[in-house]
Order: sequence, then C-alpha cells, then structure tokens
Amino acid sequence: MCEYINYFVELLGKDSCFYDDETLDNYSFDQTENLKFLPTLVIKPDTTEHISQILRYCNQKKIPVTPRAGGTGQMGGALPVNGGVVLSIEKLNSIINIDTQNFQATVEAGVINYNLQQALEPYGLFYAPDPSSWESSFIGGNIATNAGGLRAVKYGVTSASVLNLEVVLPNGEIIWTGANTLKNSTGYNLTQLFIGSEGTLGIVTKAVLKVLPKPKADITLLIPFHSLEDSAYAVADIFKDGLQPYSLELMERNALEQAIAHLEDTPILLHDKVQAHLLICFDGDSREELMPCIEKTMKVVEKYPIEEIYFADNETDKTRLWQMRRKVAEIVKANGYTIEEDTVVPRAELPKLIKFAHHLAEKNKVKVVCYGHAGDGNLHIRFNHPEHKNSYNNPPIQEMLTELFRYIHSLGGTISGEHGIGLIQQPFLSIVFSKANLEIQKSIKKALDPNNIMNPGKVTGN
Amino acid sequence: MCEYINYFVELLGKDSCFYDDETLDNYSFDQTENLKFLPTLVIKPDTTEHISQILRYCNQKKIPVTPRAGGTGQMGGALPVNGGVVLSIEKLNSIINIDTQNFQATVEAGVINYNLQQALEPYGLFYAPDPSSWESSFIGGNIATNAGGLRAVKYGVTSASVLNLEVVLPNGEIIWTGANTLKNSTGYNLTQLFIGSEGTLGIVTKAVLKVLPKPKADITLLIPFHSLEDSAYAVADIFKDGLQPYSLELMERNALEQAIAHLEDTPILLHDKVQAHLLICFDGDSREELMPCIEKTMKVVEKYPIEEIYFADNETDKTRLWQMRRKVAEIVKANGYTIEEDTVVPRAELPKLIKFAHHLAEKNKVKVVCYGHAGDGNLHIRFNHPEHKNSYNNPPIQEMLTELFRYIHSLGGTISGEHGIGLIQQPFLSIVFSKANLEIQKSIKKALDPNNIMNPGKVTGN
Repeated sequence: MCEYINYFVELLGKDSCFYDDETLDNYSFDQTENLKFLPTLVIKPDTTEHISQILRYCNQKKIPVTPRAGGTGQMGGALPVNGGVVLSIEKLNSIINIDTQNFQATVEAGVINYNLQQALEPYGLFYAPDPSSWESSFIGGNIATNAGGLRAVKYGVTSASVLNLEVVLPNGEIIWTGANTLKNSTGYNLTQLFIGSEGTLGIVTKAVLKVLPKPKADITLLIPFHSLEDSAYAVADIFKDGLQPYSLELMERNALEQAIAHLEDTPILLHDKVQAHLLICFDGDSREELMPCIEKTMKVVEKYPIEEIYFADNETDKTRLWQMRRKVAEIVKANGYTIEEDTVVPRAELPKLIKFAHHLAEKNKVKVVCYGHAGDGNLHIRFNHPEHKNSYNNPPIQEMLTELFRYIHSLGGTISGEHGIGLIQQPFLSIVFSKANLEIQKSIKKALDPNNIMNPGKVTGN
Repeated sequence: MCEYINYFVELLGKDSCFYDDETLDNYSFDQTENLKFLPTLVIKPDTTEHISQILRYCNQKKIPVTPRAGGTGQMGGALPVNGGVVLSIEKLNSIINIDTQNFQATVEAGVINYNLQQALEPYGLFYAPDPSSWESSFIGGNIATNAGGLRAVKYGVTSASVLNLEVVLPNGEIIWTGANTLKNSTGYNLTQLFIGSEGTLGIVTKAVLKVLPKPKADITLLIPFHSLEDSAYAVADIFKDGLQPYSLELMERNALEQAIAHLEDTPILLHDKVQAHLLICFDGDSREELMPCIEKTMKVVEKYPIEEIYFADNETDKTRLWQMRRKVAEIVKANGYTIEEDTVVPRAELPKLIKFAHHLAEKNKVKVVCYGHAGDGNLHIRFNHPEHKNSYNNPPIQEMLTELFRYIHSLGGTISGEHGIGLIQQPFLSIVFSKANLEIQKSIKKALDPNNIMNPGKVTGN
C-alpha cells in the first residue's frame, strides 16, 4: 500500500478515501476518447480547509494531484496521467447564498450546474452558462475549462459570469481572487487567470457568480437548410442584420439522423433535401417584442433554399428540441465518433471550416460530423475512424488534426472554444502559440506551482 | 547627458527622441492629483519592431520604461517615478482593419478611442467601451487600465471587447496572446492577464477588438431625485425589474451645480429640492421597442419623491446631456476636488457607500462629491481638502482613504472599478487582497519581468 494513504485516511476519515479497484476504475476516465489512467487514491474532501491541508502535504511530498469535478470533460483534463491522488470536489456541493438584491450566487465548486439553475428558478433568476453537460457537470469544472454552452452567443461563456473565486493554491494557501463586483481594475486579473486553467494552478473551491433575471418570453426557430454551407453563411448574415439571438446552433444532417434514430420522441421530421438545421432562439420581455426578430430572421434565411421553418414556443416542444441538441455529443460518440475537436473561428469563416473538415475526412477516409455553437464560431468536429478511436499518442490521427488546426489558425481561429486543452490537445498548442507565448504560460505555471503537483501533464504540459 | 540617449537617437532618429525641458515636463504628469515625475528621455517609436528592440536593450541595461498612452489616467500609471524612459505609443495610431463580416477591428494601441468610433460609424458599427476621456484616451491605455465607460453596464468594460493582443514582452519578444474568436479555452488567458496590467508586464502594441452593430434607436431619461440615497436605491430597483439600460449614471447635486456653473450651454434647470440625478439610457431596434422600458422605469422611480423627468430623444439634447456628464471629472478637479477614488461595490450596496462617503467627509472636514456609473456599482468619490491636494505619500489623507476602503471591502467591493491601481492606490492593495494573493501577483510580475524594468513601482509595486 502506498505510504501516503494513511495520511489521508487520518485527515479525512475512511469515508472520504478510496483505493478499492472499483472506485479507482470509476475515477480513471472522463468523457475523453477511450482513455483510462488509474490513480493511486481517490479522495473526497468536503471543506476548503481540508483541501488546503491536502495540497500543503502533496506539495511537500511532491505527490501529483488531479482535481476532478463532474468528469464530463472531453480533453482529458481530469485524467490522472501520472497516477497519484484524484481529488474529487463532489462533496463541495452547497449553494451558499443567493443574493437577489445584487443578482449574485455564491456556491461551492462541486455544485452541479443544473442544480444551481433549479435553485435560482423560484427567484426568477438564471445563471447564463449552460454547457450541454449541465445535468452532470459542476460549476468548478465549468470554471476550470471556461465552459461555454448554448446561450453563450448572447450571455458569454463562463468567464463572463464569474466575479470572484476562492482558490486553494498549490502551497495550501487559500485566497480570494477578486471582489464581488461587476467591474474590477484592482491588480492583475487572477480571477480570469484561474478560469480556464484546468486545475493546473490551484483548486477553485468557491465562486461568486453573476446571475440574471430570467427573460419572460422566448421562442425557438428550427430552420432546415438544403445546403450545409448555406446554413453556415446564414449564421453571419443574421448578426449582420443586428439580431442578437441567445442561441444559434448548427447541426448537420448526419448529426440529426443519429439523434433521431436514437431518441424515442423526436420533435422533427427530416426532409430528404435537408442537409443542416439552424436552431435559433430569441428571448425578451414579451412575445410582441420577439416578433420583429422572427420576421427579420425569416427574411435572412429565406434568401437560401430551405424547408418550412418550425416554431417552438411552448415548453414541451422547446424541451424536446433542446434535448435533441444536448444529446448529440453523447449519441454520436456512442456511434463511434470518438475523436472530438472543439474548433473555433471568426463567425464568417465557418463555411470555409466546414468545407475543410469534410475535405479532410474524405482524404483520410474517416467519417465526420459537425455541429455546435455556430453563433460564436465554435464548431464541434467529430471523427469516426475505422481503426483508431483515440488521438492521444496516435501519430496518424495527430497528423490529420495538425492539418485541421493549421488551417484554423490561418483563419484567425484556435483549437479550443470551450473544452480546454487538457491532455489530448496539448501537442497542438505550438500550432497556435509562438514559442515566446508558450514560455510565458510555462513561467506562470512555474511561478504558481513550482513543484508541478497540480494536474501535471495538462495544458502547457509542464 | 545620459549615456543611453545616443542609442535611442541612433535607433529611432532625432524626431522620435526628446530630452528638452519642455517635452520632459509635458510627459512628467497625467491626470493624477497634482503629481509630477521627470523622465530622463521621452521616445516615440512607431513600430512594434522598434519597441521590441527598445525593450530588449532596456532589459539588458536595466533601464526603467514607463509606457504612456493618452495621459488621461487618474492613478499615476503613466508617471515615470523612477525616471528612465517614457515610451509614448502616440505614433502607433493606425486603424489596421475593420472586418465588417466578423465585427472585428484591428488597431494599433495608440489609436484614440473616439477616432475608432468615428471610423466605425460609416459601417453602422461601434466599439462598446467609451470612457469619459474618449476624446483623448488611447485604446492601449484603455486596455492597460481595463477602462470602463458609460455603456459598460450593458456592454461590459474593456476586457469584454478585447479578443486578442499583440504584446512586446520585457525581453523584447513579440507575442499574440490569443485568437480572433469570440470564445477561447486554449491555454492560460494571457489576453485577460495583460488587460488591466498597466504596462507592468509588457507593452500592448496591437489589439483585435470586438465591435457591434449600432442600435437604431436610443433614448435618454434624466430623473431628478429629492434624495441622494433614494436615487441610489432606485438603481438596484431598476435592475430587479428586469430592465437593461445601456447606461445608468448617478450625479449628486454638488457635481451638477459645478457642471452647470462651468458649461455655457447646460440642458437642465436644477430644482431647489433636487439632490441627485439619474441619467438612464436604453437602446434597441426601434422607438416602439423602447417604450415599455421607459414605462417600466417611470413606474420604478415614481415610487420615490422626484421632480419631472426629462426625456432626450434628439441628438442635440442627448449630446448636451452627455457632454455635461463627461465633463464632470474635469470640472470638479479644476474646482479643487483633486483626490479621486474609483470605488466599486455590489450595486445594491450603493446607498450605504454614498452615506459613508459623506459621513467620512464630514468627519475629516473635507468637501466631497459623488458621481459615476451607478448601474455597475462604480462610484467616483472626489475629495476637496483645504490643505492637501494629493493622497500620494500623504499619511493624513491615506488614513481617511484606508477607512473608506476597509468599509468598501466589508461590502464585497474593491478600490478600483475602472481606473486601475497605478502609483497612488498601491499602498491600499493589502486592504482588499491577502498576503498570499499579493505574493501570487508579485510572482507573476517576477516571472514576466524579472529585471523589473516595466513601469516599476506600479500595481503591486515590485
């Protein structure tokens, strides 16, 4: 038995330390490709103070610590590649305060996104970031990856909704990064530095979040396009017309077919001619206020060959449509599309990116499916390779991805819009960042975590 | 003559190097209190490559470099406290590209905010951040301080509008921090780290900015309150009702009186009973769309004792109102209110803060005036002391400010909302940040600028 297990059992009690085969296996994977890495120990502390003691000890003993939130990551950020301790924040699950005067919620980092949304509901409030995984992903994990979601095109990604963070540093010190204010020019922006740092600089334990009054009306339009490229062109057109949907999602035919085949109760019929759908949502104070948005949207999309537009304005229809969109990733992965990319480009470059993705797939004899948050230029591209299910440590797949990412970089884009870098995107960072940039990133990691105990091997790969 | 002057004259030419008394004096102050610090040399490079060579040389020779943008800062960020070189970015004044497909503008850091707005106008676009100083402040300076502005309550501060930065690091390396995308989870967020770092980590030379389609309609309401505290209460009420003004400014009577006395052409009459005004603006697609906002606002404010509401819906009236608001800082400073604070609290705490500011002023026998961006909780508090015109190195004033900032911290607020820390707020950082937090900030400074050449003495005061 590993010598440090006793220390943790004594500190946290038996009920919070696990080294049985089943638990170790359960915490050896997340939603990333088909990868597994076994930790030595899984611990589940329930206070910031315990996490502080844990990190202080691990820092002294140079034990690798892999923080784990909901385990829904797709880039391997929660995989304990160097063994050591997996520190699950699942017991930090309290909603500490909902401040209805200032529209702020203070939560522990292990709160499930959806549970926060439910708790805000009675106050007529909502928390804007809502990644597809919201039923299981934690606020802390959302922060670690700077997660986006379906409403980000209007309300921003996680970084736009986080005001202040309690963080345990690798040396065990506990800090608050900022203040509970909507603006802040006080010192370096540590809040934004920790957002998206994937647990490599410390562990977020509490967050003060900005919440918003829930709009009283919203409407969803589903627009079936005859051409995938047209649907991508329409995305830029919509914004050029001054419209501000809160959601603008693109699903190509292949994604829709798989979703429909899998779900018992699908809200749509897929016409033979249709190659892609745009799902567009507007919110506002009243139905009347939304009518001009709908009319303007129709004017834009009707320039292209489309089938009849489907309007969902009641809860049942909307829920069915959104369930379909939210389940796509899961369904296509189960169907063999295990290699997922989280590409992002300036919005108007989407048609080029989609075309290139299909060209690349054809050239490499793999199947491809594209869908995602087209409104902010964030396209998920998934590959189904007849032999290779992982990109990790896999030169032929990495060669294909290198070609994709070089093209994306040439469009002004980058390799991750909302999933992060984690383990598997790490080899591609040098495509989008210069050596001098990466050295700065590494120097920050070294300044904050000189012993490299926090989630080693992730992001810059220190 | 200082030995390094020759190097710069050779590199940049005589027309870009100044060491005559008049120029040195002109670059010895900004808008901060009554402070002056003479540099040894003022240089005005006009390319990123020259700035790279300059920093490489200064890093080798350990020469302090104080970057300077428009010189409108109020916290002393541009003051060369250790002498050395003032590096003015005024010649980096090109608007490189306006991308009307992706709503992005690429500019050099020395572009004046207002000039960018003018250049965007013909395309029906605008850049959201518009600090009061917009007619003279540079985009680079706005980025350095994470400047806010009058529209931040809807559109966010500078950090929400910057996508990507070209930065020259202290060692002379040139990097781009991110990508030209609306979302980005690729590595540590260097873009946000440089925003608000006040030239202490490197010099921003170019920026890719998010711009937006200009709303077709907007309206301004000026609401005169009988009670200053009531006006502050009304601010929180407006948001609780789900309204989203793009501007929500508060001016207390004292500020209005000074502005009216100074301006030839003021748009308002100040009723005897009035103690404060709220200036509230809504924008949207049409006048019709704005009507419900106006009605709801009136419903909220009419719960309080107020005078007749003034509506400005034509350009002349709006411009006159806004000129008055924009000029307040300048006017009250000229009237002796030289000590300016940039406090920010959670919105609903504003009434407490205003009450405390007045109580503190009375106790210390100084005059006080409050105004600012009440919509995001950001209140400028200016003191007019009969003897002391500076807070810098001034224990009695610093004692008063310490009391103010401790109170603000207890409300969940902080000491700067949009002006930065610069020189004069540096002594108060330990009120809002723990020792461990400040150590992290200092370690980042040390990692990026080990020789401490960049704007020494500012922010963390390394």
